Order: sequence, then C-alpha cells, then structure tokens
Amino acid sequence: MSLNISVCQINATVGDLEANSRKILFFYEQAARTGADLAVFSECCLCGYPPEDLLLRKSFLKSNLETLREVAQKVRMPYALIGFAYPKGDKVYNACALLGNRKILSIYNKRDLPNYGVFDEKRYFSPGTSLGLLKIKGYKIGISICEDIWNESAENICLKQAKSGARLLINVSASPYHGGKFKVRYDLLRKRARQTRSAILYVNLVGGQDELVFDGKSFALNSQGALILRAKSFEEDIKWVQLQTMKGTVKLVGGPNSIEPLTEEIEDIYRALKLGTKDYIEKNGFDRVVIGISGGIDSALTAAIATDAFGKEKVLGVTMPSPYTSKQTLDDSKKLCENLGIELFTIPIHPIFDSYLKSLEPIFMGKERDITEENLQSRIRGTLLMALSNKLSALVLTTGNKSEVSVGYSTLYGDTAGGFAVIKDVPKTLVYRLSNYVNKKAGRELIPQSIMDRPPTAELKENQLDQDTLPPYDLLDQMIESYVELDQGIESLKREGFDPTLLKKIIRMIDLSEYKRRQSPPGVKITPKAFGRDRRMPITSRYKEA
Amino acid sequence: MSLNISVCQINATVGDLEANSRKILFFYEQAARTGADLAVFSECCLCGYPPEDLLLRKSFLKSNLETLREVAQKVRMPYALIGFAYPKGDKVYNACALLGNRKILSIYNKRDLPNYGVFDEKRYFSPGTSLGLLKIKGYKIGISICEDIWNESAENICLKQAKSGARLLINVSASPYHGGKFKVRYDLLRKRARQTRSAILYVNLVGGQDELVFDGKSFALNSQGALILRAKSFEEDIKWVQLQTMKGTVKLVGGPNSIEPLTEEIEDIYRALKLGTKDYIEKNGFDRVVIGISGGIDSALTAAIATDAFGKEKVLGVTMPSPYTSKQTLDDSKKLCENLGIELFTIPIHPIFDSYLKSLEPIFMGKERDITEENLQSRIRGTLLMALSNKLSALVLTTGNKSEVSVGYSTLYGDTAGGFAVIKDVPKTLVYRLSNYVNKKAGRELIPQSIMDRPPTAELKENQLDQDTLPPYDLLDQMIESYVELDQGIESLKREGFDPTLLKKIIRMIDLSEYKRRQSPPGVKITPKAFGRDRRMPITSRYKEA
Repeated sequence: MSLNISVCQINATVGDLEANSRKILFFYEQAARTGADLAVFSECCLCGYPPEDLLLRKSFLKSNLETLREVAQKVRMPYALIGFAYPKGDKVYNACALLGNRKILSIYNKRDLPNYGVFDEKRYFSPGTSLGLLKIKGYKIGISICEDIWNESAENICLKQAKSGARLLINVSASPYHGGKFKVRYDLLRKRARQTRSAILYVNLVGGQDELVFDGKSFALNSQGALILRAKSFEEDIKWVQLQTMKGTVKLVGGPNSIEPLTEEIEDIYRALKLGTKDYIEKNGFDRVVIGISGGIDSALTAAIATDAFGKEKVLGVTMPSPYTSKQTLDDSKKLCENLGIELFTIPIHPIFDSYLKSLEPIFMGKERDITEENLQSRIRGTLLMALSNKLSALVLTTGNKSEVSVGYSTLYGDTAGGFAVIKDVPKTLVYRLSNYVNKKAGRELIPQSIMDRPPTAELKENQLDQDTLPPYDLLDQMIESYVELDQGIESLKREGFDPTLLKKIIRMIDLSEYKRRQSPPGVKITPKAFGRDRRMPITSRYKEA
Repeated sequence: MSLNISVCQINATVGDLEANSRKILFFYEQAARTGADLAVFSECCLCGYPPEDLLLRKSFLKSNLETLREVAQKVRMPYALIGFAYPKGDKVYNACALLGNRKILSIYNKRDLPNYGVFDEKRYFSPGTSLGLLKIKGYKIGISICEDIWNESAENICLKQAKSGARLLINVSASPYHGGKFKVRYDLLRKRARQTRSAILYVNLVGGQDELVFDGKSFALNSQGALILRAKSFEEDIKWVQLQTMKGTVKLVGGPNSIEPLTEEIEDIYRALKLGTKDYIEKNGFDRVVIGISGGIDSALTAAIATDAFGKEKVLGVTMPSPYTSKQTLDDSKKLCENLGIELFTIPIHPIFDSYLKSLEPIFMGKERDITEENLQSRIRGTLLMALSNKLSALVLTTGNKSEVSVGYSTLYGDTAGGFAVIKDVPKTLVYRLSNYVNKKAGRELIPQSIMDRPPTAELKENQLDQDTLPPYDLLDQMIESYVELDQGIESLKREGFDPTLLKKIIRMIDLSEYKRRQSPPGVKITPKAFGRDRRMPITSRYKEA
C-alpha cells in the first residue's frame, strides 16, 4: 500500500487569481500524469502572498472563493491541496482546501497567525480551530499552514495531529527568504519530526513580491528527521514523495535524484537578488531597466545582476560625468558595460548643473558652497534617469547598498530615485563578496578589478572619499547588524567593544535617515531584518540611545 | 464626600521620555495646586503614541520603566494615572500606572489590542487580564485603555467593572482624528454609560505624529449619558470634574465653563491640518518651510495653512514659471503671497529645461514629445525646491491633494518631492471648501478669488486642463470615497450609479499609482481611510476589479 504525493512549488503572483489558477492546474495535470494521489501547493498560492489590504476588500475575497470553486471543477483524482484566502461569514481565514471529485472536500484554517517582522496576519485573518486531519487512501495526514508548525508550545497543532495518529505532517508555507533561512527551517522541522515521530512534508512558495522573495526549497523529512527530498531554490519545481506501508510501518521515501543540492550562501543570496528583481520588474509589466553607472561597485553589481536577470539587450547603462568625475570612473564604467555587453549612454551633467547654479544665483549669492551643490548633482542624475525611464519605458534600478541606506549616505530624489532598489538590503562588505562571486561565476572579469580595488567615493566634490564621512565599511556593517538587525541599545553595543563616540554618531545618522528610507523604493530583503515592512520606525522620534 | 479629578490633555512627543515626563509633572503640579485628588493623563503619554518599532528595542522599554519610576518619585498626592509602555518578563503591555506616595501603586494592562487601520498593537503588546479596578477615597473606579471600551462583546471590561461596583469608568486614549470622529466616540461612550449606568471620563492625547493627528477633545458623561465636560480641540488643556456622593448617590459633575464648544467640521479639519503640519515640522527640528507656488488652489491652501502655523517669516514661496505658465498664474501667485505676507522667489525654469533637452537630444532624437517633457518640468521644480531646502534649512511642503494622490496625477520626485504633504488626505472638493473657509476666517481674501475660479491645470503643456485627463472632481471624489475609503468592489460601485467605463479607468489609475504613493512623503490623515499605514496595498498586484 502506498500514497504518491506531488510537491508543487509554484511562483504565484499576488492578485492574479486567473493566472495562478491556470498555473495550479498546469502543475496538477503534470502531477496526475505521473501517478500522484495528492498534489500539494503552497500557502495562499491561489491569491499570491502576501495580498495585504486586498484582503479587506469583499470583492477580492469573493473572487478567491469563486476561483477556488472553478479550480475544484477541474480536480477529480488525484486530490489537490490548495492554499487560498477564505471568507466565511464576517471572518476571513488563511486556509487550505482539499479538492477532489470536482468538489471542495474539506478546509483547514491556519491557527497561528504571525504578526511580527514582515507579517501582519492578525490584521486580516481569524485563527482556525480545527485539527486539520485528513484520511487519504487509509493514511492519516495532518495539515498545517506555515506559522502553525513554528509554535513552540504544547498547543502546536502538529503534536496534536501526531497524537491523533497522523504519520505524515504536511505544512504548506509562504516563508520569505533571508540568508541562512533554510537551516532555520530544517532545524525546526527536524525537531518536530523527532517530537512527533512523523514524517514531514514542507511545501514553500517561490518568487518575488515587492520586498520579499520566497526561495522555494520545499523539503521532506522522514520520521527519523532525515532529509529525503528538497526542491529547487528560487525556481518552480515539481517533485514527488511516496508514503509506504511496509510490514505495518509507515515510511516516507523520495524518488531518485529527489534532493536538489543547496548552493553556497553567497550564490543563494545572489539568486535571491536576481529573482526578486526579475519578478518585481516583470510582474509590474516592465521588461527593460536603466541604471546609472557611477564607476563604483554598487552600480556595477546592480548592472551585473540585472544583465543576468533580463539579458543584455534589456539593460541600459548611463554614465553622467561631472567635473569631479575622474578618468578612472569613466574608463571603469565603459569597461564594465563592455564586459556585460550592455549599452552605455553618456550624458555630462555640467551644462545642466551650471544652468541650475545660474538660476539659483540671485538667491544663493553670498552663501557658501555646501551639501546643496552635492545633492544637486545627484538630483540632476536622478532626473536624467527618470527622463530616460519615461521616454524609453524602462524602469530605473537604484544602486544604494544597506550601509548607505542605513546612515542616509544618499541623496533623496537623486541616487535614491527609481522603481526598485536591488541591493538596498546588502551591506557594503557583502557587495564586495557578491561582486567577487559574479566574476568567479562568469569565469572572467565582468566587474573590472579596478572598480573593486579603488576606495569608494561619491565624487560630488574634489577628492571626496566615503571614508571621510563614514568609518571603514567592515566596522560600519558590524554596527548596523547590531543596531538595526539585532535592535541592540547603546549599552549593549558598547559591551561589544565599539567606540562610544563613533557609535553615537552612527546611531544618530541611522535614526535621522528614516525620512529618506520612507521615500525610497522597495528592494529585496536578504537579511533577517530589512528596512521597510520589517522595521517600522516612526520618522518623528526624539528617542536617543545616547 | 467628593473626589476631584484633573483631566490632563497633553501633547507628547514619540520617544522623548524626558520632555514628556517634564510636561506630565508640569501638568501634575497644576492639578495639585487646584486641589485635585487624581490627575489623569492619556494612553502612552510617557513615550508618545505610536512608538512603533521602538517598542521592539529593550533599551527603549527599559528607559520607559525607569522614567516612570523617576516620575513616581515626584508624585505624592494627588494620585496620577499615567500611560506608558510596560516591559514585564519577555512581554510588553500597553499600560497605565497609578502613582502616589512616591510609588507605583498599581498597573493596568490594556486588554483589547487594535490591529486594524493605522493600528499594529498586536505586533508589540500582549493583552492584559486584570479587571482594572481602583479604589480612591472610597470611590470604586474602573480603568480601561482606548480600544478596551470599543469592544462590543459581553467581554467588555467596562461592563465587568460596572458590575463590580465602579460608578466611574476612566478610559485613557490615544485616538487619532478624522473628520466626524468626535461624534463616533460620543455615541459609543453614551451607549456605554447607559449600559453600565456609570459616569465615563475619556482622556485623549493631543498632537501630531507623522501621519496621525490626535485631536484631544477629552470629555466626560454622567451616568445618564449627558455631556458634562469637553476639553479643547487640537490644544493642550487641563480641566476638572468632581465625583460627588449626594444622599447615597454617586454623581459626576463638571466645573463652570467646562464644556468647550465643538467647531464646525470644516474648521475642525483645518485645525487638524495645521496642528499635524506644525508638529511634524517642529518635532523634527525644523522651523521654516518652503513651498512651490503654482498659482493653483492646492499650493495656495498649503501656503495659507503653513503661514497660519508658523508665521509669515517662516514660510518661503517659490514660483517657477515655464513657457506654459500663464500671466494669470504669475499674477495670482504674487497676489497670494502678498495677501499672506510671505516672501516669493521667482525662478524661471526654461533655461534649465533647455539644458536638459539639449543634453538628452542625442538619445531622444527622432522621438515624439510625450509625458517625459512634462515630468521633466515638474522634476526641475522639485530639484530647485530641494536646493532651497538644503541651502536655507527649510523643509519643503508638497501640495498634492487626495484626488491627485489617488489617481497618480503627479510626478514622482517632481511635485511629490518634499518632507511633508499637508493636504494629501484632502480631496479636491474639500480643498475648495477649506479655501473658502480660510478667506472667511480671515475676513478677507487671503486666497485670491481668481485662483478659486479658474479651472485646475498642471500647465505642463499648451492649454492643459486637469479635466482633459480626469472626470470632474466632484465625481472623482465620490469614486475615491467609495473605492478607497469604503473599499467597494466594482459591482457595488456600479450599483451606486457610476459609469462603468469611467469607473474602470479610474480604478486602474488608482491601482497603478501605488508605487508613487509608496515613495511620497507623509501627510495628515483627516478621513476615515488615508493612504499610508491606513491602507497597505501591495505594489505588485495583478488583481483587477474589472
């Protein structure tokens, strides 16, 4: 006796009920052809995740249910387990329906609703109360949704399901990526497998949605906690497992080649950035991007990722030199674009800069040069990029990294102007590591070595270096990790050995830059705490750590 | 026998524990001098509301508790009831402490945590479980915090407190303003008074915090539900009520002149915009603003509000004419600034515009003029305003109204560039009503009649009128109210009688403008649903109403 289960790891688009249901049925048919008894899809795969305030609109919820019913019409055998948003009376559930024989056979409602980090589920959903037990071909199976399995109390639904005889626990998830997240999931589920002595099948979403990217990597553990299946990373995939009864013992086994390899963390992060960017651009109906090439490493990495994601014909580089731009900058920019095979426009900004200064002269007369003129150059560049964006229907990718975004080392409406900020959650030190990876992967110098070797500079005035204003990036990035990602207060930071005066300066810079971040474009979350929905600080705040 | 209670309606600043506690003690001393037995302050008045993710930081929570202890040191008699964020073990409560005899005598933790609209309290707080009963001078008093009293179930803590003998129910709140909100609160509390046959004292916060403005209007009802006290709107205030026992009956009475009048709704909204703007600017350390004066009604109203809030010396107007700018625009702009008494700089943009076009010519050659050139003009103006902002240390106020913000009738980094968007939640039809109010209040024409009379235009190309692109504003504003504020789907909108083709176009415009809103500055919420934390739509969404 055995039960064949297809693991359907799909890339759903928020709100696109029609396309998502077509994709679900396409995967379902594949599952059916390969002899599955049950096809399992991820959390909210019908509506995409997270649908945010679409969930407050009755018409959207109604369409959800209607679309599920239409899908059900096409599901006879095998069964299908499909995540959706379920309106019932005046409540809404984050639910999962078992379809079969052209009917909705049963519905499980998520019990534990995450309301931390990037999650707001208590804003939308009511908690479910049912036990989530199914019986298919004589096998008792427990169903849970994402957070349900993370609950560390004795109330964990999986423990109850196992007590009620479930030998397989299926968890359907939409678990956003950050570096190292697979290990977190794996350790947790191995613990559950051991607690419950049940096999576990974890089916995750894949794809980018605004700030989030879902990495897939659906996996299964047998009741000893051994890995027997892992689906692809950052790609759609269909895999199968089999629940077998041998001499009265129920066992979950994978097929041949059922364990996709994990890649090194640096490649993993690279692929997260690539997929997150690709999905944002394409799901929003664009197919071309334009990037300001500064001659620095941030724009170089951004361009390399974009070229890999969209192809060289779809990426336009623009260099916008000023009198402060060095020859090396121009040479490096040219070389980078040659290496990537992308077009490079050149637009010198000094005639425009001069016309601004002349127009402002009556007002600025007698006042010293200051940050105003630096920002002005950056805003001219932002405006030129947006003009190209408008005229050529290409979305502007911004190039700021997390270190800059943290301390506000950027010009609002200047280098922050654009539709998507590819590396906004990538600290500068990781920008270097990723750039090295890009070249290693290509087997040649895509990003010129001279870009990696030169000290970072904004080139907005004579002989300017980032390090005039900021501490060395390795030190800055450690501070950011402790203060932003781990939310340490100053006393705790001092104990980590950071210099108190420097700390105070950097914390102040981070706190005072909230207004810039609030007006900046979204970008891919790859760390445990990204700016954006993950970290919701007031702009108006007079709280001082020191 | 009687109990004197001081209602302390203060303007707290998020995070400024020190200044807030100084202010609390200042009001407390006033209360003490006037013979109070108890001084009541609003929800979270010690830390400001909402502190958002500051509440995730241990050092902030610790400071909260330490500051409360310091305040307690200075409170002997009268008692003081003070809202604060209360860390206990690994939990945090939205709490309210009774201080007296230099000690923290008891703490009540909020039970019902709002997690809808602008609220995210389940992200931070654990629910309390205690009954919230105090006994002061022999009087049993029930304490609840904001949402607690809104709970419509039999679990409502006020009902339980009344059953346990409380004859006065004190609710400390931080209830954000929208037009008509007082009536909502009043109707609710009157219902509670009747249900419980108890008097109710409602103490609200006052002041602006990012998108929110708290309107004060603390009030009290006797046990028959009659109004016996109302504090000022949009101002700090201290008022008193007395709990008396007469012939065995407990009665709440106000003092003479204890009921501040309510103003007309239009004045109420005006004052909300003024206070929200003033507090944003000042709490963020600015004292001057700069505004692009377009000759239209939106910038005229914004300038009028700013002048009223900061004084004419602190407001700079800038007109930035292009070849498409009419003489009327220039005359009207000049007249407006004369009427308001503010300085007006003039910076013609065509030399800068020409220098952009010349620089872009090699790339744009052979391509038609389109929206690019319109956006370019707007972005030049945004860049000029930001240059003035940098050089003169003045924050840019943007001037877009809710109708434009909804349909994206704006240029990102152009007219949306700035620190605060005063009228972003004000529909265009209300902009007219507010402008008329401004003139009526002044008793003279502050906003020139010619500005109100001319048809709205962006003046970014020849003979351009808003009405070429948009339906009449009274119709558009109705659609926005139904679709954005009431979240109606298209079927429901059709039933309201809107033309289906027009509806489809407008809904599409609203949906597709999310990316612009996400990068726009905050502004004062004055409607039941504002853009921002109140309406969290995904940018990437393929859901179509039609």
